[in-house]
Amino acid sequence: MDRPDDTAPGRALMARLADLARFSSERDALTRRYLTPEHRGAADLVAGWMREAGMTASIDAVGNVVGRYPGARPDAPALLLGSHIDTVRDAGRYDGTLGVVTAIEAVARLHGAGERLPFAIEVLAFGDEEGSRFPVTLTGSRAVAGTFDAATLDAVDPDGVRLRDALIGFGCAPDAIPAVARRPDDVLAYCEVHIEQGPVLEAQGLPVGIVTAIAGGSRFKVAVEGVAGHAGTVPMALRRDAVCAAAEMILAIEALALRTPGLVATTGVIAADPGAVNVIASGAFFTVDVRSDDDTVRRTAIAAFERDCRAIARRRRVGVEIRRTYDQPAALCHPALVAQFEDAVRRAGIAPLRLVSGAGHDGLAMRALCPIGMLFVRCRGGISHNPAESITAADAACAATVLLDFLRRFDPSGLRASQTG
Amino acid sequence: MDRPDDTAPGRALMARLADLARFSSERDALTRRYLTPEHRGAADLVAGWMREAGMTASIDAVGNVVGRYPGARPDAPALLLGSHIDTVRDAGRYDGTLGVVTAIEAVARLHGAGERLPFAIEVLAFGDEEGSRFPVTLTGSRAVAGTFDAATLDAVDPDGVRLRDALIGFGCAPDAIPAVARRPDDVLAYCEVHIEQGPVLEAQGLPVGIVTAIAGGSRFKVAVEGVAGHAGTVPMALRRDAVCAAAEMILAIEALALRTPGLVATTGVIAADPGAVNVIASGAFFTVDVRSDDDTVRRTAIAAFERDCRAIARRRRVGVEIRRTYDQPAALCHPALVAQFEDAVRRAGIAPLRLVSGAGHDGLAMRALCPIGMLFVRCRGGISHNPAESITAADAACAATVLLDFLRRFDPSGLRASQTG
Repeated sequence: MDRPDDTAPGRALMARLADLARFSSERDALTRRYLTPEHRGAADLVAGWMREAGMTASIDAVGNVVGRYPGARPDAPALLLGSHIDTVRDAGRYDGTLGVVTAIEAVARLHGAGERLPFAIEVLAFGDEEGSRFPVTLTGSRAVAGTFDAATLDAVDPDGVRLRDALIGFGCAPDAIPAVARRPDDVLAYCEVHIEQGPVLEAQGLPVGIVTAIAGGSRFKVAVEGVAGHAGTVPMALRRDAVCAAAEMILAIEALALRTPGLVATTGVIAADPGAVNVIASGAFFTVDVRSDDDTVRRTAIAAFERDCRAIARRRRVGVEIRRTYDQPAALCHPALVAQFEDAVRRAGIAPLRLVSGAGHDGLAMRALCPIGMLFVRCRGGISHNPAESITAADAACAATVLLDFLRRFDPSGLRASQTG
Repeated sequence: MDRPDDTAPGRALMARLADLARFSSERDALTRRYLTPEHRGAADLVAGWMREAGMTASIDAVGNVVGRYPGARPDAPALLLGSHIDTVRDAGRYDGTLGVVTAIEAVARLHGAGERLPFAIEVLAFGDEEGSRFPVTLTGSRAVAGTFDAATLDAVDPDGVRLRDALIGFGCAPDAIPAVARRPDDVLAYCEVHIEQGPVLEAQGLPVGIVTAIAGGSRFKVAVEGVAGHAGTVPMALRRDAVCAAAEMILAIEALALRTPGLVATTGVIAADPGAVNVIASGAFFTVDVRSDDDTVRRTAIAAFERDCRAIARRRRVGVEIRRTYDQPAALCHPALVAQFEDAVRRAGIAPLRLVSGAGHDGLAMRALCPIGMLFVRCRGGISHNPAESITAADAACAATVLLDFLRRFDPSGLRASQTG
C-alpha cells in the first residue's frame, strides 16, 4: 500500500491541480464558468489524463467529461467517481477538481498494475456544480441522474446567453441530454472526494474524514417592523425597537443551533432602517441560513425559530415577517459506503472521523440515481471559495490512496438495501 | 386667568406657526436653514410680531432676532425667553418656533394689559440651533452666552459658503459677534417652551410638563472582528461570528438602559461584513447613542457597556473596538425654575409632571450664561424632525398661559444659589 506521507504522488496531484488552475477567464484569479473556453480547455486536459490512465474518454451532451475504465466483465455495472471542474468567481483551485484528479489517479494506479475490478469505474468531471454562470446548479450531475429539467435550457447568463446556445457553442447537442441519464441498473454508486470546506478535520488533526450526509438547508429573510423614534426622547419602556428585536431573534436561532446537535444557523446579512445613529430603528432586516443532515431536526428547529420570533415580536410589540427563500432536503450517504470508506481510512492508519457536509455537492443530484458516498480532505483554516483555499500534497496523496484501497475492496452487496434521506 | 381650553388664543398661535412655516427653501416641505433668504423672511416676521407685542426688536450680529420688553425700572435685569427659528431638512413646524410664538404671546398679553414686571423680558429667536446648514450647532445661543468660537466663522456649508460670508450676506457684522454676549449680571435666567419630541406627555395625558434637565449624551461606533466562514461547514462551537457577538452587545446596552432609571440607549445603525446569506460574518459594525440627565449615571453605564462588550468579545473569541464619536454633558434646569414652572402648571389645573429632555436645546449653550428652565408641550406620537410633527391649538394656548402665569409670579431670589450639572 502507498503510504500517505509518500511525497511523489502528492506532488503529481498538486501539479495537475495547478495545471487545471491555469484555465481561467481572469489573469490573476481563478474563475472557470460552465461552457466557457476555459471550461473547454480544462475538460480537454482532463480527458487526456483519463486516456493516459487507461480510460476511454469523451464529453457528453451536457458538457461533462466522462472517462470509463472497464470492469473484468464487459457488462459489469459501473461505480461512478468524480466531482466538478467549474468554479465560483475568484475561486480556490481544489474545490471540485481534487475529486476529479484523485479519481483519475486511483484508476491510473489500477491501470498501471494491470488490475481489472469486478465492476467498471467511470470518472465524471461535471461541468456545472457551482451555478456560477447560469441561475441553475448541478446541471451536469442532474443530467447523469436523469433529473435534468429541459426548461433550464432557456436559462440565461448575465450576458443574455441562453444555456441551450452555450451548449451548442461548446459542441454539445442539447437535445441529446436525456440520453446522458444512466439507468439505475447500470450503476452501483457515486463516490466523491472533496475538500471539507470547513475546519473540523484540521481541528482534529486528520487528513481525511468520512461524510455521512450532505446537509439539507433552508434560508429565510426576516423583516422586523418597529416604530421609529428620537434616540433621546423615547423612554426605553415605550420603545418598539426593530434592531433590538432582531438582535434577540438572531441570538435565539444561534442558541437553538448551539443546543441542537448537527444543526448550524447563520445570520450573514443585517441592516437597520432608517439607519441613523440618533434614530430608533423602525425596521430591521436579517437573513438566516439553517442546515442539518437530519431534515426532521432542521424542520423542528425552523418551527421553533418561527415560534421564538413571534414570541419576541409579541413581547416587544413589533411586527415580524419570515419569508423562506430556499429549501433543500438533506442527502444521506449510504451506510454501506460510509462503512467501506471508514474501513479504508482505518486501514490507512487514520482514525476514521465521520462528519456532515454543510456545503452542497453533486451527490445531492446523484442520489436520485444511486447510493452516494463522500470522502472529505482537510483544507487549511476551513477556507473555501477563496484564493486562500489550501491543502497539502500529503493529504491529496492520502485521499487518492484511501480511494484506491476503497475501490480494490469495494463490495456492492448491501447497497441495494433501502436508504432514507 | 386664561383657561387652557380657550380656543381663540390657541388658534392665533397656530396661525402664526403656519405663517412661519411658509418660509422654506422647498415648495412642498419645510426646510429653513440659518442665514438663508427664508430665514431672513421668518426673522423679519418675528421682529414685526415682537413690535406689535410692545417690544423693541432687532437682528443681532449673529442673526438672532432680539425683542425687549422693558421692566418697571430701566436698569432691571432681563429674563430671557425664546427658542430657534431654523429647522432641519423636511421639518415639522413646531420644533423651535413654538417657543418663540408663545413667548411673544405672553409678552403681548402683558403689553395688552399694560403690565410692567420688576424685570425686563427679552425674547430671542435664535438663528441656528439645528446645525442643518453649517457643521456647527447652537451658533445663536452660544453668541448670546459668550461661548461663540470665532474659528467657526470659517465653517463652510455644503455649497462651500463660509459662515462669515453668509453672515455678511444676511446683513450681519461678524466682527461684532463678541458684543452679542450678555453680561451675567444683566440676565436672570433663560426659559424656553418647546415641543417634547417624545411620547411621555401624550402617554400621561398631559398638555405640558416641566423639564428638569437636558440629557447629556455619548455616541459610539462599535466594530466587532470575527472570522468569516462557510455557513454550512463551520460547526457552531468553532465559530467566531461577528453578527452574533454584535447582537449580544446590542442587547447588553439595551438591558443596561432598561434597568437604569433615566438612561436611554439606542443602536440605530448595524451592518455585517461581507454580508452574504451563506457566509459567517467576519465583521459587524453598529452605533450606540447613550443619554441621561445624570452624567455619572451615563458614564457608569458606558463603563459597564464597555466591560460587557469586552467580556462578550473574550467569550466569543472576537475582537471589539469601541470608538467614542460624540460626548456632551447634561445641562440641569435650575431647581428654582423647575419649582416655579411646576407651580404655574399646577395653578393651571394640570398635574405637574417632571421630565428630562433627551434632545438638545439652546439651553445647552445658555447655561454657560445663566440658570435655565424649560416647559415641554405634548406632541402627537412623540414625532419630531418630520412633517408629521403635530400639536393641538389647545396645548399651544395652555403653554402660553402657563408661561404668562410663570412670568407674573417669577421670583428671581434663589437663582443665584450654585447649581450643578
